[in-house]
Amino acid sequence: MKKVGITLGDPAGVGPEIFIKSLTYLEEYDVSFKVYGSKAVLDFYSRLLGISLESFPGNVFFEDVCSVSDFIPGKVSVEAGKAQFEYLKSAVSAVKSGGIDAIVTLPINKESIKSAGFNFPGHTEYFASEFKIKDFAMMLANSKLKVVLETTHIPLNKVANRISSDSIFKKLLLIDRYFPGEKIAVAGLNPHAGESGLFGDEEERVIKPAIKKARDLGLKVYGPFPSDTVFNRAVSGEFGTVLCMYHDQGLIPVKLTGFEETVNVTLGLPFVRTSVGHGTAYDIAGKGIASVKSFISAVDLAVKMLG
Amino acid sequence: MKKVGITLGDPAGVGPEIFIKSLTYLEEYDVSFKVYGSKAVLDFYSRLLGISLESFPGNVFFEDVCSVSDFIPGKVSVEAGKAQFEYLKSAVSAVKSGGIDAIVTLPINKESIKSAGFNFPGHTEYFASEFKIKDFAMMLANSKLKVVLETTHIPLNKVANRISSDSIFKKLLLIDRYFPGEKIAVAGLNPHAGESGLFGDEEERVIKPAIKKARDLGLKVYGPFPSDTVFNRAVSGEFGTVLCMYHDQGLIPVKLTGFEETVNVTLGLPFVRTSVGHGTAYDIAGKGIASVKSFISAVDLAVKMLG
Repeated sequence: MKKVGITLGDPAGVGPEIFIKSLTYLEEYDVSFKVYGSKAVLDFYSRLLGISLESFPGNVFFEDVCSVSDFIPGKVSVEAGKAQFEYLKSAVSAVKSGGIDAIVTLPINKESIKSAGFNFPGHTEYFASEFKIKDFAMMLANSKLKVVLETTHIPLNKVANRISSDSIFKKLLLIDRYFPGEKIAVAGLNPHAGESGLFGDEEERVIKPAIKKARDLGLKVYGPFPSDTVFNRAVSGEFGTVLCMYHDQGLIPVKLTGFEETVNVTLGLPFVRTSVGHGTAYDIAGKGIASVKSFISAVDLAVKMLG
Repeated sequence: MKKVGITLGDPAGVGPEIFIKSLTYLEEYDVSFKVYGSKAVLDFYSRLLGISLESFPGNVFFEDVCSVSDFIPGKVSVEAGKAQFEYLKSAVSAVKSGGIDAIVTLPINKESIKSAGFNFPGHTEYFASEFKIKDFAMMLANSKLKVVLETTHIPLNKVANRISSDSIFKKLLLIDRYFPGEKIAVAGLNPHAGESGLFGDEEERVIKPAIKKARDLGLKVYGPFPSDTVFNRAVSGEFGTVLCMYHDQGLIPVKLTGFEETVNVTLGLPFVRTSVGHGTAYDIAGKGIASVKSFISAVDLAVKMLG
């Protein structure tokens, strides 16, 4: 039976309560779950939300990674920062020792975890560093659309210079490795995909050579397409994944077609890794109103990717 | 009774057949329509599609602007270029003389009409030039979402330098003039709207001052918001219009939420002007399969804007 790790994320965010509310769903899966968190955190939210936690489903195993007492829902805290980092370290150790086959992450708080010495933009880069992986990619997925980002958290005015044929080619290989044989569309960078060079030349100069190289290897890659219609085509089933040139080009359509069920997937790691598509949501943490949809979708996809 | 002008657009595109198929809808409106086109073109498509054109509805008046014989559906032609330009000139004259209150345009072909001496990127700039208007804006709208573009057909790498506080402020005024009192959201330029300057400073430096200036005048303007969630909020009814910084930021969500019914509106002209959201669609011209949805939506909105 495959083993899926779950990290509880920031004790002050919505992660722990989402986990508690999801337990009845986890029971239904034909995998076992190893959960990295703090018993004190679960007890706190169990009391706060009035949900009894006397016993876990038979396929859910909880590891009390560390104690944590000083945290308040919705507040940055050094102790919570240390705890969420420890959960990640434990999960990474478990992957390395063969104890788990996948990690589903609940949200960390960048400010808190940074105070504990976590110097990465996010989970993705941390995992890549731990496993010494250079070629990885962020995929956002919901039931209607999958997108992969060529560039992520950089200013818009840096995007045109940052995209490269080599990086686009490697991301196309990664997508095909995870979703073999699926048709991949590549979005253009400029309006109307440059309209034959009229509004920018990156399509001709950077994107097309990468597509050609991938097609020469037999990959089903098409484009570059104007980004204002390629997502309609993907949603209608014409393409499996759309490779996007920048953050909002990919995030706008994914969030618009499946806001609550959007899942983050890291391609390229030596294990399956999915994540909720949202953050710690401090504005609603501890109120018991956070939706479990994205987390359940993340678990679903991880289980599916384990095959 | 208000009078709405309709220009037939490129004789070789889908405009004429869309008009013919829409006649039964036009009859239902409580306005009169003045149509600028060529009888020869309507006769051609009437025969081709097998739709009888013996009489128009009582509120539709056709002006046979010029003769045109040398055109083939789906092909660029000099004569068709001249004709579509003449239709526009006639409509503009009618607006100037008070003969019509609005213009709904069917698509022109840029290559054809350019050969007839039309030296503008599109309808919008032509009308602005004819009426000596400098402050105008392109709005794209469907039943779920309205967006206005701060920049339009320029390369992505030019966007950050092209946006300006002054231009954003003027566009906010225009939106409020057309949709008074509606809440307006402004999209950020960078991922996460710059995340407090971490991924770009245009939000602080360019966008926020414009928003402040508009709010000081009493406009209900909010933002800048991360563009990967602002459209979900607008679709849910929180905002009436989203001011977008670049072409695909606005076009991706509009086409995704209402592809066939998307309508183009020019704000700032001394008359109401709407247009279909699509082009001449040469690949399907003359086949009788072009959807009338966008045209009907454009007529709907024009009539609504006339009040």
